[in-house]
Amino acid sequence: MYIEEQYQNNDPKAIRDFIQQNSFGILINQTEGKPWGTHIPLELEYNPEGKEVLYGHIAKANPQSAALQNGATVLAIFNGPHHYISSSWYDHENVPTWNYIAVHIYGTIRLIEGDELLFSLKKLVDKYEATSENPTKIENLSAKTMRQVNGITAFEISIDQIQAVHKLSQNRDDKNHSAIIEKLENQNRPNAISIAREMRKNRK
Amino acid sequence: MYIEEQYQNNDPKAIRDFIQQNSFGILINQTEGKPWGTHIPLELEYNPEGKEVLYGHIAKANPQSAALQNGATVLAIFNGPHHYISSSWYDHENVPTWNYIAVHIYGTIRLIEGDELLFSLKKLVDKYEATSENPTKIENLSAKTMRQVNGITAFEISIDQIQAVHKLSQNRDDKNHSAIIEKLENQNRPNAISIAREMRKNRK
Repeated sequence: MYIEEQYQNNDPKAIRDFIQQNSFGILINQTEGKPWGTHIPLELEYNPEGKEVLYGHIAKANPQSAALQNGATVLAIFNGPHHYISSSWYDHENVPTWNYIAVHIYGTIRLIEGDELLFSLKKLVDKYEATSENPTKIENLSAKTMRQVNGITAFEISIDQIQAVHKLSQNRDDKNHSAIIEKLENQNRPNAISIAREMRKNRK
Repeated sequence: MYIEEQYQNNDPKAIRDFIQQNSFGILINQTEGKPWGTHIPLELEYNPEGKEVLYGHIAKANPQSAALQNGATVLAIFNGPHHYISSSWYDHENVPTWNYIAVHIYGTIRLIEGDELLFSLKKLVDKYEATSENPTKIENLSAKTMRQVNGITAFEISIDQIQAVHKLSQNRDDKNHSAIIEKLENQNRPNAISIAREMRKNRK
């Protein structure tokens, strides 16, 4: 994606944390001659070889599946909080804008099966079951339930390029920056609160 | 996108409401030989000819801008709430899943300028300034401020195809459906609460 330099997030830890906390992403490729998107968890994990990859899987019935061959290029989009920023909150005239956080990863598909596939599913399930009272465990599921694995195409995405934007009114002076945070915090909307929190964290 | 029939949203009013309430979308096309996404408000509006279109604009400095020619096909993605669904919440063994709501629109670009461009910006700003104390008004901005319009590529997207998914555990029986709602409502997380609300609305 296009990112103005002042809105680039160049902090690898912040980017990794963002992806892991906003892992329900969109897998984009060109399928049947047009851009195609599938909404799935894409988990940033170390694979058994110690390489950081994205793990994901989609239904074999999804036409996108046929395009996910070894070596295929895909775009993984991770969305974060976002909110309208009214220029009426500034002490001067300007046009309104939108603040948001997002990460785009371009990568290369490698299909996985067998133990690698089970490893990726275990990572996924263990992550989201961490707070469950009676956590579902991949390794405890019956052979019958695990036959559902036959209906998915699973893959790891080797990361070729990371694009990270955090557009957080970095172009405003202290006074206006503070006014925006205050107005957002008064909105009582989750996205507004999240953007205000990120703006506070991002202050010099 | 691929949508299992049971998860299709076929209610035009619900789809329209969703797009208007989740208008900060992603504009996807093929740019410089790869899928490219830009996060922007995409507003579902009637144009001056009374045709329902999506209005949007991006920075001319964005490489995607060069690919937005009249007649170009684009994908507009609108994201909604989503949440992990633990199979430990069911009364039987199964694999976990994810519930979510999203709309994908395929459409055709028509570049707009002059009065049409101002009309689209006015619609956008008036919508988000509706609750402002001192609303910014496009028609009140100075000529100097409005020169920023020279830096954008504005367009309307003629709608060719709408794909609407609301994956809300429609494949679960009443007892399990209720258990999922209850568990989500106990999460105290905005996405969980939103999905629970949508599941309640979607009950037969």
